[in-house]
Amino acid sequence: SIDGQRLWSSLMAMAEIGATPNGGSNRLALTPEDTAGRQQLIEWCADIGCRVRSDAVGNLFFRRPGSRDDLTPAAVGSHLDTQPKGGRFDGVLGVLAGLEVFRTLHDHQIVTERPLELIVWTNEEGSRFAPAMMASGTYAGVFTVEETLARQDEQGVSFGQALDETGMKGSLPIGEPRLASFLELHIEQGPVLEEEGLDIGVVTGVQGMRWFDLTIEGNAAHAGTTPMAYRHDALAAAARLIDRLYAIAATDTSGDSKVTFGCLEIDTPSRNVIPAQVTMTVDLRHVHDDQLDALETRFYSELEALVETFAVKVTPQRLWNSPVVAFNEQCIASIEQATRARGIAYRRMLSGAGHDAVYVARVAPTAMIFIPCRDGISHNEAEYSTPEQCALGTQVLCDALLHNAND
Amino acid sequence: SIDGQRLWSSLMAMAEIGATPNGGSNRLALTPEDTAGRQQLIEWCADIGCRVRSDAVGNLFFRRPGSRDDLTPAAVGSHLDTQPKGGRFDGVLGVLAGLEVFRTLHDHQIVTERPLELIVWTNEEGSRFAPAMMASGTYAGVFTVEETLARQDEQGVSFGQALDETGMKGSLPIGEPRLASFLELHIEQGPVLEEEGLDIGVVTGVQGMRWFDLTIEGNAAHAGTTPMAYRHDALAAAARLIDRLYAIAATDTSGDSKVTFGCLEIDTPSRNVIPAQVTMTVDLRHVHDDQLDALETRFYSELEALVETFAVKVTPQRLWNSPVVAFNEQCIASIEQATRARGIAYRRMLSGAGHDAVYVARVAPTAMIFIPCRDGISHNEAEYSTPEQCALGTQVLCDALLHNAND
Ligand SMILES: NC(=O)NCCC(=O)O
Ligand SMILES: NC(=O)NCCC(=O)O
Repeated sequence: SIDGQRLWSSLMAMAEIGATPNGGSNRLALTPEDTAGRQQLIEWCADIGCRVRSDAVGNLFFRRPGSRDDLTPAAVGSHLDTQPKGGRFDGVLGVLAGLEVFRTLHDHQIVTERPLELIVWTNEEGSRFAPAMMASGTYAGVFTVEETLARQDEQGVSFGQALDETGMKGSLPIGEPRLASFLELHIEQGPVLEEEGLDIGVVTGVQGMRWFDLTIEGNAAHAGTTPMAYRHDALAAAARLIDRLYAIAATDTSGDSKVTFGCLEIDTPSRNVIPAQVTMTVDLRHVHDDQLDALETRFYSELEALVETFAVKVTPQRLWNSPVVAFNEQCIASIEQATRARGIAYRRMLSGAGHDAVYVARVAPTAMIFIPCRDGISHNEAEYSTPEQCALGTQVLCDALLHNAND
Repeated sequence: SIDGQRLWSSLMAMAEIGATPNGGSNRLALTPEDTAGRQQLIEWCADIGCRVRSDAVGNLFFRRPGSRDDLTPAAVGSHLDTQPKGGRFDGVLGVLAGLEVFRTLHDHQIVTERPLELIVWTNEEGSRFAPAMMASGTYAGVFTVEETLARQDEQGVSFGQALDETGMKGSLPIGEPRLASFLELHIEQGPVLEEEGLDIGVVTGVQGMRWFDLTIEGNAAHAGTTPMAYRHDALAAAARLIDRLYAIAATDTSGDSKVTFGCLEIDTPSRNVIPAQVTMTVDLRHVHDDQLDALETRFYSELEALVETFAVKVTPQRLWNSPVVAFNEQCIASIEQATRARGIAYRRMLSGAGHDAVYVARVAPTAMIFIPCRDGISHNEAEYSTPEQCALGTQVLCDALLHNAND
């Protein structure tokens, strides 16, 4: 069985790279911090004889040979990049749990039938370069290499430029290696497991999500002299939109509609100037694609209402649509069996967050394992799971991987 | 009579300093552009024999001797600083109209009884350093020199540091010279004169205004996994506040309540993170102080409601309170007479914008002259008044000043 203390040590060591004042990590994708985190993993893997290969979008693949290297590998993995004020577990756990499994097999000189792959996907968070899960999506053929390399951050730096600076662009053809299976361990990032007193979530799929950029254009005018009725206030229009969409999501009694406005910026703000232009982001999610369609339709009709009410110009751009995903039944079963075999309290559940597993599922049998996290908090420096919770999830990952590698 | 063409040429020449792409000007207070604009004026004034003096907060005083230099001077003036995307007339007109009056008197070798002063007040806009009308307020004893020099911009640069870099800090004692009268010509910055087909506004006073900084603190959380009901979204709270205060102002059927949110910033924004902290500015105005009190009370009770509804922490800070001002009846009368004498269509009116005249009125008999501006637009690069409108206002200023200087 895996070494929970060693796992915890590697989690805490990784968290030091890009550590933030309030106990989180800042390793935005393809920054020097992200690269330093990956470099640390490369060293750790080298210590147990696993060399790294990478592809054109910087995905890292660490191979552990099997007894039958003609077979496609059984894989695990996740991501090492974080939010700008991110936690120490989101993504990191799935990668370092894979490392811990490899170390355990190394210690016990266990050779699986299939070779194993530990994978680190590039830019999962989507915070620096939108959309999220960009490099697993490229691996799976959802995005072309060209479009991925051309994506730009807020400063206009392209993914390609940033990747070149890391020196981690490799020659592995996109889509290789093909995988026999992929398992991703992750913190739940929500409150369900903790509230229900369960230790493991067997993740059967992921909700749908859509990302938009939105520009609202009104007119700059004087705060003191412009009658309220004459204004074309881009910020007041944005505020109405946010308030309305919050209300609409709140009326969905299932609780499955989610709307978030993570970024909002006023062009050339000044205290006594009515804002002329606002740019903002919109994130819509739902567990059913048809209801996500309906939510998107409501979003557009609320935009129409803004044009009516505020006489502003609205320019929405949908830049990402990730449909609802159902994971592979056999992979789900291998996790469920591993969980049951150890007598762990668990439930099947959907994921509210996107994960690299979403895209990998298009090209390989895939499923995920969740562990609880404190107060369901994630994308926050305060994100926390206990050493025991991390170890338990890693043990289930290990057991399910061994099953998949020796099937 | 004044030379409208020469006035227009100096307005257009000044507009070139810090010109913006869409036909406006950017001379934020105490930036190199602002200093270059002031330097230009110093040269123009030197050409007609007017030397400049300045005080500890960078106010510039250009003196034209009278026949009785033992008398206190009759003054005109305004400001040369602009909004970041400001117009070519706001403030500038009042200064360059004064220059045009001085040039006209120079051409005709007219000597007034009282000496004259053309004054350029520092940092009227309040966009870089809040609050507005800072240096006229210091002149008038409303702010101490120390507090003014210590005010900081967004980058943490103090007014004092910025002023030192301009080299325009002078040794004139604060509050000197004392003035027999002060007249400020300005564009209306609102739609009333244009709508009523009038050429001059005789300004009898200025509405009250209050400025606030506001911080709203919630919790960062994941956009996909955090149920709507569990969120403490600082941006959603800000949106509710904006929407509610707009609605409250709209229900004031007099149209005299004004609320503006010119700046709003999310701390560490990311698309898929629920905003943890928002900082914003609030500008409340009303023509009656008691109703402005009531509006401020509503603002605070809406903040209470946010705490209730969103379980966020709110920290409002009132950083400026400028009460309703009534100008001096004799100064108003001198303007009204000058306007009538030329058969100009005019009305008495209040100003919705703050002006240096607000503070000067505390220490000297003061009034203002407005001219119309196109569509009432100001604090916008598109701000415009015609050469004829500018010339007419300048003529009225000249006539009223001569009256005040020879009383
Ligand atoms: N797991 C995770 O936080 N992924 C980021 C993509 C998303 O916003 O769901
Ligand atoms: N005139 C003018 O725009 N002053 C700035 C102060 C204010 O916001 O009213």
